Amino acid sequence: MGWMNDETGLERRAANYVPLTPLSHLKRAAAVHPLRDAVVYGTFRTNYAEHHARVSQLASALERHGIAPGDVVATVLPNIPAHVEAHFGVPACGAVLNAINVRLDLHTISYILDHGEARIVLVDTQFLGTVEAAIDEMESERQPMIVEVPDEKAGFHASGRHMTYEAFLAEGDPDFDWIMPEDEWESIALNYTSGTTGRPKGVVYHHRGAYLITLGTPIAWRMTLYPRYLTIVPLFHCNNWCHVWAMPALGGTTVCCRDVTAKAIYDAIADEGVTHFGGAPIVLNMIVNAREAERRAFDHVVEVFTAGAPPAAATLAAIEPLGFNITQVYGLTETYGPATECTWQDGQWDHLKGAERAAVKARQGVPFPNMDHIAVMDPDTMRQVPMDGAATGEIMMRGNATMKGYYKNPRATAEAFRGGYFHTGDIAVQHTDSYVQITDRAKDIIISGGENVSSVEVEGALMHHPAVLLCAVVAKPDEKWGEVPCAFVELKDGAEASDAELIAFARQRLAGFKTPKHVVFCELPKTSTGKVQKLELRRRASEF
Amino acid sequence: MGWMNDETGLERRAANYVPLTPLSHLKRAAAVHPLRDAVVYGTFRTNYAEHHARVSQLASALERHGIAPGDVVATVLPNIPAHVEAHFGVPACGAVLNAINVRLDLHTISYILDHGEARIVLVDTQFLGTVEAAIDEMESERQPMIVEVPDEKAGFHASGRHMTYEAFLAEGDPDFDWIMPEDEWESIALNYTSGTTGRPKGVVYHHRGAYLITLGTPIAWRMTLYPRYLTIVPLFHCNNWCHVWAMPALGGTTVCCRDVTAKAIYDAIADEGVTHFGGAPIVLNMIVNAREAERRAFDHVVEVFTAGAPPAAATLAAIEPLGFNITQVYGLTETYGPATECTWQDGQWDHLKGAERAAVKARQGVPFPNMDHIAVMDPDTMRQVPMDGAATGEIMMRGNATMKGYYKNPRATAEAFRGGYFHTGDIAVQHTDSYVQITDRAKDIIISGGENVSSVEVEGALMHHPAVLLCAVVAKPDEKWGEVPCAFVELKDGAEASDAELIAFARQRLAGFKTPKHVVFCELPKTSTGKVQKLELRRRASEF
Ligand SMILES: Nc1ncnc2c1ncn2[C@@H]1O[C@H](COP(=O)(O)OP(=O)(O)OP(=O)(O)O)[C@@H](O)[C@H]1O
Ligand SMILES: Nc1ncnc2c1ncn2[C@@H]1O[C@H](COP(=O)(O)OP(=O)(O)OP(=O)(O)O)[C@@H](O)[C@H]1O
Ligand SMILES: [Mg+2]
Ligand SMILES: [Mg+2]
Repeated sequence: MGWMNDETGLERRAANYVPLTPLSHLKRAAAVHPLRDAVVYGTFRTNYAEHHARVSQLASALERHGIAPGDVVATVLPNIPAHVEAHFGVPACGAVLNAINVRLDLHTISYILDHGEARIVLVDTQFLGTVEAAIDEMESERQPMIVEVPDEKAGFHASGRHMTYEAFLAEGDPDFDWIMPEDEWESIALNYTSGTTGRPKGVVYHHRGAYLITLGTPIAWRMTLYPRYLTIVPLFHCNNWCHVWAMPALGGTTVCCRDVTAKAIYDAIADEGVTHFGGAPIVLNMIVNAREAERRAFDHVVEVFTAGAPPAAATLAAIEPLGFNITQVYGLTETYGPATECTWQDGQWDHLKGAERAAVKARQGVPFPNMDHIAVMDPDTMRQVPMDGAATGEIMMRGNATMKGYYKNPRATAEAFRGGYFHTGDIAVQHTDSYVQITDRAKDIIISGGENVSSVEVEGALMHHPAVLLCAVVAKPDEKWGEVPCAFVELKDGAEASDAELIAFARQRLAGFKTPKHVVFCELPKTSTGKVQKLELRRRASEF
Repeated sequence: MGWMNDETGLERRAANYVPLTPLSHLKRAAAVHPLRDAVVYGTFRTNYAEHHARVSQLASALERHGIAPGDVVATVLPNIPAHVEAHFGVPACGAVLNAINVRLDLHTISYILDHGEARIVLVDTQFLGTVEAAIDEMESERQPMIVEVPDEKAGFHASGRHMTYEAFLAEGDPDFDWIMPEDEWESIALNYTSGTTGRPKGVVYHHRGAYLITLGTPIAWRMTLYPRYLTIVPLFHCNNWCHVWAMPALGGTTVCCRDVTAKAIYDAIADEGVTHFGGAPIVLNMIVNAREAERRAFDHVVEVFTAGAPPAAATLAAIEPLGFNITQVYGLTETYGPATECTWQDGQWDHLKGAERAAVKARQGVPFPNMDHIAVMDPDTMRQVPMDGAATGEIMMRGNATMKGYYKNPRATAEAFRGGYFHTGDIAVQHTDSYVQITDRAKDIIISGGENVSSVEVEGALMHHPAVLLCAVVAKPDEKWGEVPCAFVELKDGAEASDAELIAFARQRLAGFKTPKHVVFCELPKTSTGKVQKLELRRRASEF
């Protein structure tokens, strides 16, 4: 409470208190870096002066079409320039951006449009049919207006049924005076979670958090001025981990990537000089497994953030010599994307090679510079568990890049925030050096005979079997043990294995109570972000 | 005003709203980088675990000695570890740090102690006599307690008259629970201006601004993790431009430098691997003019911020080949140090050499990433002047790293903030690319026959004369013209020149109304930060 003896005249004023918002970065970039590339997509190229003007037109056109501050504007768009523009243009008219996952089924999109109450939705022609059907299925009478975003070069031609994006922009004023937040706690985005553990929840972001993560990220990612950033992470996924909002602060260039392929990534690196991108481990595998003809030569090191799961040792071993440096980050929709990073300890870790190097890179790490406190705690007592690499607890987070809460769900919000921390639902250990390592999701833990079994550990054991392509282990209710591990397995093409064989195989590596009691062969159900739906598997396991 | 339709449950909470303060950086560094060098000074070396413990002890000892939140703790210290520790330990007990310029005369120190109401003052043995005398001269009955900081290795042995710093620390608890701000608007520091244009004013900093500049600086300075930073800028000068608060965010090392000499700088670069430092142009000259025996070899480029005045072309030409990259920044005590930077435009400027390169580096530049809007305006209309490199106006600033105001001086505060901007008092042009370039201080402009004359321009003309070492030009009241330029000149050792000769010389380069009408030869009066006191010269000029 550092209030001085006499604070007369020392209150906040326009000159010394400006609400934090990532919009400021673009305003500044338009003045400081007008001629630098802002957005690149094939032959589409805008510098910061042009980008700022298009964003202003979008904001202005939205306002002219009745969007008022606090209204929701949705997108169903891949990573194309219109989507980057919407990230600034929607908040620049005071509205809230709801970027919807393009891979969702029409029912879920319909649910989100109803729940989020979007007034206008920008839709890529590729997804137009789905969105039209989703709107037809809405419960609300107030249906959103569609603005269609065709992508001629990608082969998606305007349907003629809706106003197109460029026609919409043309109605806007490039000199539109942006509606800046008066309070940095105002909402900037509404992002629905992946729905891995249940119905997607609408996570609300504040301007303050979106601004602060853009300043923490360059430190974590060792980014200096003028990065060339490739958008692999979808803009609808935690707003591209907020990276797209950081670029103007760095005078950086956002290179758009509509379809994520090894060829597209290599071309962007070689032709556009891409220096940074983020992506799930599956993207790393794509690069490792690229065909010779898809590869391109380049002579810099590309910095890659990966999240969603730890990068496998084999992947690291294969990708790093190709000119990529991989850093694991971890976070949730609720934390604007990355909240921890496995920060490499220069000097202390440089001697680590092979398995040892992969082992430290497998950790989720330490808080981002913009987060306050992240620790593994007992959720009942809210006390930190010992940092011994063995004791497990739930990862708890406190910091400014944490959501306002779940939209229209005060109960889930209060639950998620009880005890002064955001409860991640991820189970982890904390190593002696404070680095966090996830062992499982709380909902996926199996409790057998009173003992905790990590589904991840059992999956790891089965994955060593040469016939196993993919597997997921969940709890099956059991009269004697309460729960027992039940494995769902996808075999490799042409490979064979029996359930008894896999159970015996697992037993060689696991304690008896951790060994699966049942094995089911089938294709695994996945969410639209590619995560296995264990909820669905638990349902199936409870039914036989 | 992005408030959504239904914001139930979306209010600020402990988990998602943490007051911004640079103290967070050190808390995090102690957890994330415990074994990394935090502070280095000769054989003194603390890692972040130890540094955090000593800071906690200081905070605890201060509290035990009666310091309550909001109280002021002063320092009269050079750039030694105790001063770095005070930058965290003082706010960590809720107090406000008043770092006093060690070069001030005892009367000014006495004035500051009275005005700032410090309860405790940490004093280096070198300055003890002055501070004791300053306390004797105080008007207030409530005199501060002295904690003496001897520096044995520098030859300053404890006087025996006061408790020493280490004894004081020993009374503190290394596990002390820091008193963190509950409101980021609380005060963290009280810094008196240089007093170049009048009596020093007490500038109050808020935690929010001190935090935000630490995140803007790494972007501006292209700093990545683990910098090795040398403290040349005094910690009492805008708190070392706040760099010392940024270091823990980057896991960086603060290398202390008690006496600024070319040898000390070269040794720090070669022995401690220093990568960054800031300093006035005079420091650059020191490096350029170093004797052969003082120079050391190193193989990296050292990044240097310079402020106070633009770096001279000759200095740039000489220093850059030695392995230093110079970037000009500009700011004031009121803006936490740097507020603009002459950001180098990679690609666009790389071809510039020699005079052209020096010319762009002579600009004060563009807003730091953490500032909102900086422009050259007409102070009466508050409208921006044309960005044509010719129209002049006053530099106005708005942004979060702007002071709360002047302590106990609401009138000067209101005056400085009128019209929603901080008025810098610096006169400048804005180039077509928006880069700002200072032409003069408002108070130093000479108005002769209704025409504005930049004192800086007249000085520049005189400096070309081979006999002139230093000069300052001020307004002298004149019956006919209102004011006329009057030059005060220091000649080089052994050199000679008459007033008529210098006036004729200047006339060759300047319009008649800009040519000085009077020349006075004398040693120029300087402030404790080395700036020429034009106020004093104006007084003298008005008296003959
Ligand atoms: N680096 C990582 N390592 C392991 N798991 C990760 C990592 N990064 C993210 N995750 C997992 O992803 C989760 C966050 O994913 P996201 O917010 O996209 O939706 P979801 O949690 O899968 O869906 P829902 O909350 O609707 O069930 C984390 O809680 C964690 O379980
Ligand atoms: N890069 C620079 N180029 C030119 N002038 C600079 C630069 N950086 C700082 N200055 C000058 O220094 C001033 C800020 O100095 P500081 O806040 O230390 O005290 P002061 O203004 O000299 O003292 P006082 O306000 O008490 O008169 C600026 O207003 C400007 O005139
Ligand atoms: Mg989740
Ligand atoms: Mg000043």
